[in-house]
Amino acid sequence: MTRIKPRILKGFRDDLPETMIPRERMLRTIAEVFELHGFSPLATPAIEYSEILLGKYGEEGTKLLYRFEDNGGRDVCLRYDLTVPLARVVAQYAQLPRIFKRYQIAPVWRAENPGKGRFREFVQCDADIVGTAEAIADAACIEVGAAALKKLGVERFVIRINHRALLGGILKEVGVGDPDRMVEIMRVIDKLEKIGEGKVRELLAPLMPASGIDRIFELFTRQGTPQEILEEVGRFSGNRETREGVATLEALFSHLTAMELCEVTTLDLSIARGLDYYSGAVFETTLLDRPDFGSVMSGGRYDDLIGIFCGRKIPAVGISIGVDRLFAALSDLGLLPRRPSVTELLVTCFDADRLPTTIEYAALFRRLGVRTEIYPGAEKLAKQFKYANKQRIPYVAVVGPEEVAENSIRIKEMESGQERSIALETLKQTLKEAGPTLAALFAETT
Amino acid sequence: MTRIKPRILKGFRDDLPETMIPRERMLRTIAEVFELHGFSPLATPAIEYSEILLGKYGEEGTKLLYRFEDNGGRDVCLRYDLTVPLARVVAQYAQLPRIFKRYQIAPVWRAENPGKGRFREFVQCDADIVGTAEAIADAACIEVGAAALKKLGVERFVIRINHRALLGGILKEVGVGDPDRMVEIMRVIDKLEKIGEGKVRELLAPLMPASGIDRIFELFTRQGTPQEILEEVGRFSGNRETREGVATLEALFSHLTAMELCEVTTLDLSIARGLDYYSGAVFETTLLDRPDFGSVMSGGRYDDLIGIFCGRKIPAVGISIGVDRLFAALSDLGLLPRRPSVTELLVTCFDADRLPTTIEYAALFRRLGVRTEIYPGAEKLAKQFKYANKQRIPYVAVVGPEEVAENSIRIKEMESGQERSIALETLKQTLKEAGPTLAALFAETT
Repeated sequence: MTRIKPRILKGFRDDLPETMIPRERMLRTIAEVFELHGFSPLATPAIEYSEILLGKYGEEGTKLLYRFEDNGGRDVCLRYDLTVPLARVVAQYAQLPRIFKRYQIAPVWRAENPGKGRFREFVQCDADIVGTAEAIADAACIEVGAAALKKLGVERFVIRINHRALLGGILKEVGVGDPDRMVEIMRVIDKLEKIGEGKVRELLAPLMPASGIDRIFELFTRQGTPQEILEEVGRFSGNRETREGVATLEALFSHLTAMELCEVTTLDLSIARGLDYYSGAVFETTLLDRPDFGSVMSGGRYDDLIGIFCGRKIPAVGISIGVDRLFAALSDLGLLPRRPSVTELLVTCFDADRLPTTIEYAALFRRLGVRTEIYPGAEKLAKQFKYANKQRIPYVAVVGPEEVAENSIRIKEMESGQERSIALETLKQTLKEAGPTLAALFAETT
Repeated sequence: MTRIKPRILKGFRDDLPETMIPRERMLRTIAEVFELHGFSPLATPAIEYSEILLGKYGEEGTKLLYRFEDNGGRDVCLRYDLTVPLARVVAQYAQLPRIFKRYQIAPVWRAENPGKGRFREFVQCDADIVGTAEAIADAACIEVGAAALKKLGVERFVIRINHRALLGGILKEVGVGDPDRMVEIMRVIDKLEKIGEGKVRELLAPLMPASGIDRIFELFTRQGTPQEILEEVGRFSGNRETREGVATLEALFSHLTAMELCEVTTLDLSIARGLDYYSGAVFETTLLDRPDFGSVMSGGRYDDLIGIFCGRKIPAVGISIGVDRLFAALSDLGLLPRRPSVTELLVTCFDADRLPTTIEYAALFRRLGVRTEIYPGAEKLAKQFKYANKQRIPYVAVVGPEEVAENSIRIKEMESGQERSIALETLKQTLKEAGPTLAALFAETT
């Protein structure tokens, strides 16, 4: 048989244990925080009928869909996000509760031009509240997102919040009336952080009057508390959209204050979000130490999306943590220790005759909660230690003839080089008291 | 906009929280057991170049691949299992250790005719050891699989073990020499449990002499310990393949004895496994209380697969837990309690003015580790309690004017109907001592 070259597609990744171990820990932490806040897990298929997804992500999004004909000739797509499948689920199952809090952690696929930190397959972590238009739900989504970041050790971040109607009301006030034009303008404004004020002004020039551009940039750069800025916006524009946006954001920021999130949230009138389905509050999150990684947590309210599938309005709001960006940023900041193996203890294989005892010893360690593997083969001990070294396994046990005769075990702490012979009874007692950490065996030596 | 009917593709599923909560718990338990045995996590892309996957799963398998052209015109497939991607990874990354123990829990896609318990998207949980041909590695895979089943509460199961060379040697002995014919015969034998002896004999009739069919069925139905049966097989056939198979299985069963797995393992000469890549020991697992669910954990040795990608032989062995079948079986056996929500405590929303206090109380419960949600809106209390009932949330807290004035909280245990007013200080103290369970607050009442 001819050899097949091992390779993967551009924009895709293998996560070897070295990166997968901290990634898994990170995803597990996020799931735990989501559950602590009362969000329950949901899973939806990777493949959906194309008509479910088409037309929800704007023109650019539609181009990025992985769309194909399945083996039965059906027009299907790989999922592009977790929000549209959620909307479908809510419309499809009558048994769901009126207030539905769900989280989903799953990969999505987008045929983007791959670049630094941008992949064609990436994991989203979404938490959403369906069934209420109250601002407390928006606040609860921001709260759980902030809690997840803090639990991951991220302290220095800012969640920037805006409201689509507010931005719309302001644009209306400066003379932009056409809804399509408004969407176009919001898409340009959404790029502000990426391309800068000069470029945005340039792109806006053909879309709206110059005086309007000046006015909106005045508001964008206004310093002050959310309450102060909202007051000023209220003075500037009194139309229905602005009033609605101001009222919602006032309530939202008051909840965020009760949640002790004042210091990590801010009002930013220039946040627009690219996706078509947002209809109310929108959020983005910047890491203060690594703003160049872009938004690591985004979301917003989409009160009209579910209606597309069920014919009546069901309000909803959600937040999505971009774990790939966050992972890249945390790695950069040194917050994610890497290790090529989960194993804490390697039990060496002294010779084939002693394998039964070796197996029993390994089973004992596992019963005590220690992540343990046996070296699979009676090779030279030096080679087995070399393996432990390469895998950065912190402890190595030797089960030789002497140890077996004495009902004991010899354990080496790889970093310090210390070795100890320990009677099995002592071992059991120590680990039962100290928990499943072999460090305890070395801490008590003099 | 016209309404789009919410629906999913045939053979695919949504897992609503009611099923997803126990599924998630199950997957987390399996991952923990894999790690306890020193397997580290790996992730590979959902999409692979077609040439990586083609020709590895037999003719039937190839037909079931989801194969399409991606947006860049590349010929790609969704992954069909986790073993072939592992083989690619091992061949691709020189930095991997010589002995590589990895697990992967991820969905795979097969365009099968969907039937009871058979889906087009399903999750596999694989644990493999790469880099050694020693039988201790085969035993370690069986050991971790059995440990996972036991941890999930499954006690009554049997892992049936065979060896491809053994079966080959026996077939050779009864006059089947052609390797292609042998593979054909093994595929028929693999269906024994599904279609029964009569039908298998019928299908074998044109493929091998009648006397041979009788001889192999004599061996298949032979009662005895693995050691006794292996001895008999050794007397029956002395060719190289049989000798190799007998020696390997003798070593394997001796390791399994040391692992205290005698009672859940057996030698079954009729196990063949459908996949083309198996080359040595093969395993299947039947639940004694639900044999109709088929094998819930299967695997085997595939010493020639990785070589296809790297040009040299790298031995490997692994086990795969079929979590969907297992989940269906455990649900049937009542081993998986279902709940539509993860929430333990619903904090009701008394009125909008008291929301800041409500938010603070919820935060307090979360700090104590209690999974808590706030009802998002000041609706009638009866409606909020109805929601808790439907979601089977076990505890509901009311933060009314009296409670706020007294620095206390009123909690109702939904099942018993008991209510208690508890001072916040008492609450903190009790939960700190008892752990994050509200039951403790009710246990101590008289």
